[in-house]
Amino acid sequence: MKEADIERLSSLSRPHGDMINIMPLQTGGMLTEAARRVLVDFGDGYSVCDFCQGRLVDIANPPVRRFVTEILPEFLGSESATLTYGARDGVFMVIHSITKPADVVVVDGNRHYSTAVAAERAGVELVVVPNSGYPEYTVDTEAFAGVIQEHNPALVLLTYPDGRYGNLPDAARLGKIAESMGVPYLVNGAYSVGRMPVQMNELHADFLVGSGHKSMASAGPSGVLGMKSKWEDVVLRRSALHKNKEVECLGCTLRGVTLATLMASFPHVVDRVAHWDEQVAKAQWFSTAMEAIGFKQLGEKPHRHDVMVFETTALFEISQRVRDRGYYLYKEMEARGIWGIKPGQTKALELSTFAATHEQLEQVIEAFKAILHKYR
Amino acid sequence: MKEADIERLSSLSRPHGDMINIMPLQTGGMLTEAARRVLVDFGDGYSVCDFCQGRLVDIANPPVRRFVTEILPEFLGSESATLTYGARDGVFMVIHSITKPADVVVVDGNRHYSTAVAAERAGVELVVVPNSGYPEYTVDTEAFAGVIQEHNPALVLLTYPDGRYGNLPDAARLGKIAESMGVPYLVNGAYSVGRMPVQMNELHADFLVGSGHKSMASAGPSGVLGMKSKWEDVVLRRSALHKNKEVECLGCTLRGVTLATLMASFPHVVDRVAHWDEQVAKAQWFSTAMEAIGFKQLGEKPHRHDVMVFETTALFEISQRVRDRGYYLYKEMEARGIWGIKPGQTKALELSTFAATHEQLEQVIEAFKAILHKYR
Repeated sequence: MKEADIERLSSLSRPHGDMINIMPLQTGGMLTEAARRVLVDFGDGYSVCDFCQGRLVDIANPPVRRFVTEILPEFLGSESATLTYGARDGVFMVIHSITKPADVVVVDGNRHYSTAVAAERAGVELVVVPNSGYPEYTVDTEAFAGVIQEHNPALVLLTYPDGRYGNLPDAARLGKIAESMGVPYLVNGAYSVGRMPVQMNELHADFLVGSGHKSMASAGPSGVLGMKSKWEDVVLRRSALHKNKEVECLGCTLRGVTLATLMASFPHVVDRVAHWDEQVAKAQWFSTAMEAIGFKQLGEKPHRHDVMVFETTALFEISQRVRDRGYYLYKEMEARGIWGIKPGQTKALELSTFAATHEQLEQVIEAFKAILHKYR
Repeated sequence: MKEADIERLSSLSRPHGDMINIMPLQTGGMLTEAARRVLVDFGDGYSVCDFCQGRLVDIANPPVRRFVTEILPEFLGSESATLTYGARDGVFMVIHSITKPADVVVVDGNRHYSTAVAAERAGVELVVVPNSGYPEYTVDTEAFAGVIQEHNPALVLLTYPDGRYGNLPDAARLGKIAESMGVPYLVNGAYSVGRMPVQMNELHADFLVGSGHKSMASAGPSGVLGMKSKWEDVVLRRSALHKNKEVECLGCTLRGVTLATLMASFPHVVDRVAHWDEQVAKAQWFSTAMEAIGFKQLGEKPHRHDVMVFETTALFEISQRVRDRGYYLYKEMEARGIWGIKPGQTKALELSTFAATHEQLEQVIEAFKAILHKYR
């Protein structure tokens, strides 16, 4: 390998400092000022372990113990909680703990790819309750009862909301169904926990996973897992040889800076969740404005989440006759200070209105109008 | 929960800014200046995913693909490599991929606790080749042959070095034994990869795991896993449904700042590995100086690693007659600007000379002398 290639690694940078960010993957994970402040202090490896006496979740300084045993459960509406590397890792921990190979897990048709991969890793079979298809792609939780009846699953998993359409199925109704049929129920809240109010107990769920880097204004990898206390002995079971260590966590998970940012951003996250209604209003205003240009919002309407996808046929048609093909849109938006359009994407655009202000979203609308006008 | 408790989370800090750090867990994970610079730019969740087209390890900007497919394998002496959350997570990935429940894994008596926990998580049985006991605790790799013969393991794992004694067993010899007996062989390099030269192929190993936060000047959680290319189809197998995604990685692992620091520190890490002989000389000088005070270095002598443990009976005896009991030593060392003594520990001290300069280590020696004198 060339030395110059290696040297270059020491000066990495990102391309979009102050751009308007509408990328669904990124809008909920942008750090708060408080989190940015702790980055340097807690940058070193094992930085949160200064005073560890053998268990990450028992560390008193920084107050990990308080955070994990008191603050997180209250926030999640759970009886117990732990730290994970991310939502997918929480999903795997649960599947791996409470199922055995060849068991069935029933999931919604809008599940994240990582749910399927986690199931595959654990050797269980997925049975999918499909969504309603174009254009709303809704998941009818009533339909789970029959599927549960038929397949006798070891777990039911609902994506709340999914990361493409931003659809919010009736998670509480599914909770009641699962509860009455005696099946453990996991809610994947990667796009809800830290953005909007979500209480595991109100959803009648056994498990709730959240993502620090996706929705809790945290650096990645980081995540949270809430559960009913009856599952502690299973999911948080201790090692036979090393009584202090939880088997599914391999002892410790977030040994450093990502936990520091998760904790430092938490007060802000609590506050922003309380203002979720403003986010929904902003999303609905944006959806209406996009439709006024001629784009079609897919997924539920009126929309109840900042993540959404638009069918943008007019933008696709332009791509068929310009030199840059599908890449023109990314370039045009980037030139207008807007970040989050996937290079090459024009047919359908996945966006999030979470991080942008109303004024910034007006700029986004104006940008689309200008591009349509330019290439008309 | 009280609002004040939550608000407090936004102002976390660490207690020891410019202290001399001799904590084995921390000395190899302290960030370089380059890594500290990228912290803020890459602090946001999913920061490395700006230009992702579906696979973390294929991202061109920042140059993750180059790093994972070219630079890391050359550094590790492996044919293939991937990113993990840490050494333990690499160990679990391998065990989970190549064994089935009830298989046997043969390990050395100095294995890290997380090796046992990873085995437990995968449902395999550990068979231990014991160390030689007090005072050297060495692992004789010749002894593995008989144990392999008897137990027909699915994997042999060697800790190189262990994190307590810093002993370096003959890893290449075990590689030849495992090779000749047809057993896959994993080297846990959590305390070697990034500190000292270690090449998987020279050790005749199938797998080599390293830890970003422990030994690669990186934020945590982060780690690396090198392997022979013949294992790619097993350990890096793709999902049946999502062909872009690796099952054992749940799709993606280091989606953010910890990968940025791992890469930014890498040029420095390459350089420091080339100066390992200076680290060994410093460690040996320190060991001699500690023994001149009356402490006894356990583990191999002459010592070949910066991690070591000393029997410090004189310090323990003091703890029996002072008001602070075992905590006096932590307080005395902290007051002298030295970080890394576990509160309460006096009987045996685990230390690392890796991050401290020769002059700083002289201060450590002087501190011990002064404490012994004060309480004589």
